Amino acid sequence: MKPDDLQPTPGWTLARRTKRMNPSVIREILKVTERPGIISFAGGLPSPRTFPVEAFQAACDKVLREDGRAALQYAASEGYGPLREAVAAMLPWRVDPAQVLITTGSQQGLDLVAKVLIDHGSRVLVETPTYLGALQAFAPMEPEAVGVASDDEGIDVADLARRRGEARFLYVLPNFQNPTGRTMSEARRQALVQTARELALPLVEDNPYGDLWFDAPPPLPLSARYPEGAIYLGSFSKVLAPGLRLGYLVAPPAIAPKLLQAKQAADLHSPSFNQRLVAEVLRDGFLDRHVPTIRSLYKAQRDAMLEALAREMRGLDVTWNAPDGGMFLWARLPEGLAAVSLLPKAVERGVAFVPGAAFYADGADARTLRLSFVTATREQIATGIAALAATIRETLHP
Amino acid sequence: MKPDDLQPTPGWTLARRTKRMNPSVIREILKVTERPGIISFAGGLPSPRTFPVEAFQAACDKVLREDGRAALQYAASEGYGPLREAVAAMLPWRVDPAQVLITTGSQQGLDLVAKVLIDHGSRVLVETPTYLGALQAFAPMEPEAVGVASDDEGIDVADLARRRGEARFLYVLPNFQNPTGRTMSEARRQALVQTARELALPLVEDNPYGDLWFDAPPPLPLSARYPEGAIYLGSFSKVLAPGLRLGYLVAPPAIAPKLLQAKQAADLHSPSFNQRLVAEVLRDGFLDRHVPTIRSLYKAQRDAMLEALAREMRGLDVTWNAPDGGMFLWARLPEGLAAVSLLPKAVERGVAFVPGAAFYADGADARTLRLSFVTATREQIATGIAALAATIRETLHP
Repeated sequence: MKPDDLQPTPGWTLARRTKRMNPSVIREILKVTERPGIISFAGGLPSPRTFPVEAFQAACDKVLREDGRAALQYAASEGYGPLREAVAAMLPWRVDPAQVLITTGSQQGLDLVAKVLIDHGSRVLVETPTYLGALQAFAPMEPEAVGVASDDEGIDVADLARRRGEARFLYVLPNFQNPTGRTMSEARRQALVQTARELALPLVEDNPYGDLWFDAPPPLPLSARYPEGAIYLGSFSKVLAPGLRLGYLVAPPAIAPKLLQAKQAADLHSPSFNQRLVAEVLRDGFLDRHVPTIRSLYKAQRDAMLEALAREMRGLDVTWNAPDGGMFLWARLPEGLAAVSLLPKAVERGVAFVPGAAFYADGADARTLRLSFVTATREQIATGIAALAATIRETLHP
Repeated sequence: MKPDDLQPTPGWTLARRTKRMNPSVIREILKVTERPGIISFAGGLPSPRTFPVEAFQAACDKVLREDGRAALQYAASEGYGPLREAVAAMLPWRVDPAQVLITTGSQQGLDLVAKVLIDHGSRVLVETPTYLGALQAFAPMEPEAVGVASDDEGIDVADLARRRGEARFLYVLPNFQNPTGRTMSEARRQALVQTARELALPLVEDNPYGDLWFDAPPPLPLSARYPEGAIYLGSFSKVLAPGLRLGYLVAPPAIAPKLLQAKQAADLHSPSFNQRLVAEVLRDGFLDRHVPTIRSLYKAQRDAMLEALAREMRGLDVTWNAPDGGMFLWARLPEGLAAVSLLPKAVERGVAFVPGAAFYADGADARTLRLSFVTATREQIATGIAALAATIRETLHP
């Protein structure tokens, strides 16, 4: 049932912002890919093999036994103290736990940022392309989202200066970006922070994937270099498990209280039980032992996809990058092919991806597509990329 | 650190709506009442004695053992299928599980309703007084909140017709209302629904306390009588535990898809793990056995407070009601006393409450105050009400 087919009952008046709220393309695709037999490179689902189920079992036991009633009670909107302290201690710059706000996934961080910083018509700068979920989180506050030119190293700083205008902030995902998998170089980070300072341009830095590096950690976050001018968003979804819906944000003292008030109005607080579970699991350096296992799994999966692409796409004029971490790889189809048109044919052959066009604030490149290399197995990657190549070949030479 | 003391760093521009976002009075009071030795009638905290810790322990074991990886993975924004079915089956009118949206507490339901139905300046009708958290959830969307006259039976239907205007909806809490504890009578419900139909006025019905009746269940919800014109909000916070942050809403098919899109943008979905835990705990009629124990505890606590009030307030010209369920009782001070001024003196004597003024959209009655009878023990209730009476006596006759 599509919302546009529905006639609201007399009396209901929808807010203007609902015109900007539309079903996620990715979400609709995910429904198709739930069909058995489809190899999906579409979703952004971490590999469930990486979820530390035993650690959560032990944490549930301990938290409910030792602290059950407090864990099940209402709690402060800021979050559970020991978890805020653990987050502050994890970050590679000096963060006061008082600046840390625990959020219901980092997606909620984006919702709170939008509420606190975006008015109707506010200019908001984003990368080209950018995370679709951020565009969706910002949309209800009715910004004018403007894409800044970006290349393999990230934001084009000269273009940023040209597009600054009255922008409220630049939203940027410097590490293993969703959707492209690209990482902002050290030189580009320095240039970006210098330009942001000169332009007095706040940054909203989203870093859900930064720990998922394959050979070397990425350069220092932008927020570490420009803490008074940046809101930093982090997540436990990719290093522990997304089903707990826990993320966090770090904000300058001038902004943090308003984000906290927005948080309180939005859902009072994130689940106290989940916050205690994660605080318990994080003890004793758990992530130092656990995250390397995710890195090596995802690196092997990336390699499998790169090998399959090199093998199967030969002679097809398809290009792709080789991300240094994260979950996604970005590919581009030959001239004349649009990813959106290719998708149904690919699904017929049993393989799914996300057309890149959904990730652009403006001026979409219709030839691009996002491939996740972490959900499918290596065998499925080989089969799926072969099916994708066959689809492209058939479309080019019917 | 108060937000108004903060100088935003150059470059940051706050959205206009942040002027409406202010620290919760209740939240600031709760901080004071966390001091040891304070007897608090202020918070809306369910008694932790009612939390079914053992049932959650068993559910954690089972869910993680049988379904751990799915429980920790991303999931559909609508919520976990079996939980949506359980909610639909629990409600006393015909609800399709497809109309049920699982929310991160029913507070999030209010945030989603605000996003989907409120434009800047939209008229929104509320009871006099009404739930503070709803006013806070609506505020970021910048409505004009208008109080409708209300008496012991609920909304004054004639006043509702006068104030209808272009109102987007009436927000109403018919059962054991927060803050007053009052319940809308059967006759008033019939009149309200008839008037709402005539006025084509949508209702947002909030029912977190409906199961907490003491002697007899409250009349049928408004939504059961007017399903096409009502959004119904429910919660597991008062019948299971608030720390899981799980609630739900039921919306007419014309509105449900927009609420779902708002939900997706807000936090993708509510925690899959928690949803599975609650679905597991709900099996085999658990609530039918568990909720009666909450009812009898809270009834005994209400009785303790009524007895203490009758004993301690004698001759003081203080009035109060006798709620038939829920968690709160509503009292009114003698002429010339304001609850806000009384509070610091009461805290000095070791007892806290919430001044009623915070709960009015407009035209606050400064003499009112809200007393929770569920968090303190019966002994504490006796001591605390005596301290409150002493404070009033001292203020009247210094």
